[in-house]
Amino acid sequence: MSEFSLIYQHFKNCTPKNPLTQIGIGDDCAVSNIPPNAQLVSCVDTLVMGRHFPHSTSAYAVGFKSVAVNLSDLASMGATPYAILLGLSLPSHFANDEFLGEFTQGLADICRAFNVDLIGGDTTKSEILTISVTALGFVPSGQAILRSGAKVGDVVCVSSEIGSASFALKQILNGEKSDLQNALDLPNPQIKLGQKLIGFANSMIDISDGLGQDFGHILTANDVGAVLDLAKIPCNRLLQTLPNDEKWQHILNGGDDYQLCFTMSQENFAKFNELYPNEIFAIGEIVADKGLKLVNHGEKVNFTINGWQHF
Amino acid sequence: MSEFSLIYQHFKNCTPKNPLTQIGIGDDCAVSNIPPNAQLVSCVDTLVMGRHFPHSTSAYAVGFKSVAVNLSDLASMGATPYAILLGLSLPSHFANDEFLGEFTQGLADICRAFNVDLIGGDTTKSEILTISVTALGFVPSGQAILRSGAKVGDVVCVSSEIGSASFALKQILNGEKSDLQNALDLPNPQIKLGQKLIGFANSMIDISDGLGQDFGHILTANDVGAVLDLAKIPCNRLLQTLPNDEKWQHILNGGDDYQLCFTMSQENFAKFNELYPNEIFAIGEIVADKGLKLVNHGEKVNFTINGWQHF
Repeated sequence: MSEFSLIYQHFKNCTPKNPLTQIGIGDDCAVSNIPPNAQLVSCVDTLVMGRHFPHSTSAYAVGFKSVAVNLSDLASMGATPYAILLGLSLPSHFANDEFLGEFTQGLADICRAFNVDLIGGDTTKSEILTISVTALGFVPSGQAILRSGAKVGDVVCVSSEIGSASFALKQILNGEKSDLQNALDLPNPQIKLGQKLIGFANSMIDISDGLGQDFGHILTANDVGAVLDLAKIPCNRLLQTLPNDEKWQHILNGGDDYQLCFTMSQENFAKFNELYPNEIFAIGEIVADKGLKLVNHGEKVNFTINGWQHF
Repeated sequence: MSEFSLIYQHFKNCTPKNPLTQIGIGDDCAVSNIPPNAQLVSCVDTLVMGRHFPHSTSAYAVGFKSVAVNLSDLASMGATPYAILLGLSLPSHFANDEFLGEFTQGLADICRAFNVDLIGGDTTKSEILTISVTALGFVPSGQAILRSGAKVGDVVCVSSEIGSASFALKQILNGEKSDLQNALDLPNPQIKLGQKLIGFANSMIDISDGLGQDFGHILTANDVGAVLDLAKIPCNRLLQTLPNDEKWQHILNGGDDYQLCFTMSQENFAKFNELYPNEIFAIGEIVADKGLKLVNHGEKVNFTINGWQHF
């Protein structure tokens, strides 16, 4: 039995089949029904051991995270996840029941949480553990929230605390235990919030490469600028006691947050907060002057955004 | 600029955008329209250098073949290809314009031939060249041709010559020049034939791991047996002069054919041949007795199908 058959046998015992799937694993292709009035939303992300996660990461977390990072991309469009296809390149010392069992449990747990089916897969031998996941989802036709669409005067928001995964990674690479390890290993894609933001948000992105760089993509896509107040960006209490420069490094340049960053009109911001109090956090405003201006409690701050090559 | 941006810049200069694509590369996900009354058909295949193609394979052929093998899976369902998503793990000595340019040209040439869009991608560094392609297509609702559906009395058919790629691979690994190298490097997915077979074929698979093993999947899926006449399996004239055992090794156990193997009623076989003469080749018949019986001009033959573990 191939490694992929082992993965699929274990997976299907842990998850219900998504009712959209007519033919899943076992034929040359999957065949899937499509919800009425929907558009297909798709993305692919590849994780490489030692590059996208530390070598010490558990097999469970590797499986979980390889799906989570893709669902986060679906969330940033307001989409509802449907299924994944898995391309797994496996070193021979991982081609055993122990690794594959834990890996699949992580995969299955996040898939079950979001009603995601595994409809295709392929395993190959390789020197380095490499996981390429394609995620498919659906969005009501014409309703996907794009990077473009931000308007001058929009409130800039994030979905939750930023910087936790980056701080955890630093602690782990220093050989310390981290109370924030779950933020790094088991990201929680903001699917429900993404869906709620349809009709409210003008533009959206998920934060994978650092808030600074990813928010920069929104500015570039819209040819606008922004003022962000660093004091307003929510972060874990463990980060709040750090010196400002270190804290801002994690928040702006850290990455691996898998939270959402989005913009909406002042009016929609007020409406959304009335409907869903304390779910989103205003951190700044879109302005006509290009470039990103950072302030701290209103005072101008100089801080370098890594990889920020857009201006 | 990332390697994937380079690939995409070159790709989009070589191919028209598929009109189904509303948002392609450049946002967190692609957003695609769906043809009316269609089901989504999807698959993933991963190719590893040295394992799925010889190290001597040209960058052009690597790009071409990584898409072709996936389109062949779509063909085996009768589907119309729509798009691919590319997960590329790239050794640093391939992360240059020369390799990426040729690779992308191969990718673009086959995509243009089948009106396939590149709607997602990710490149990562790795020790070994690994290409994971997800292919998406559509099929009229309820019309996909599956592995199951074969009936006793069905004619077993193939789409064209079998064994050429396997013979070419043997020549190349022996250091010889092969007149059949294109069969190995640039497989021609049988998309048009697959579409025509809707309404005619009862069951279908594409031949990637050898006719013997892949046709075995049809037998297993249908709990039936078959008699194949080896003398009726079309093969290139370069194979016809080989000793039988060597010829049958390439034809039955070789793989990399990316032709279609399918079954249909005697009545449909006659109708199809009238409509489309000389497009398909009858090689045997489905029978109630389980197992695969091989004959040569009607005489029973003993020949071992590799990997044939279904009986």
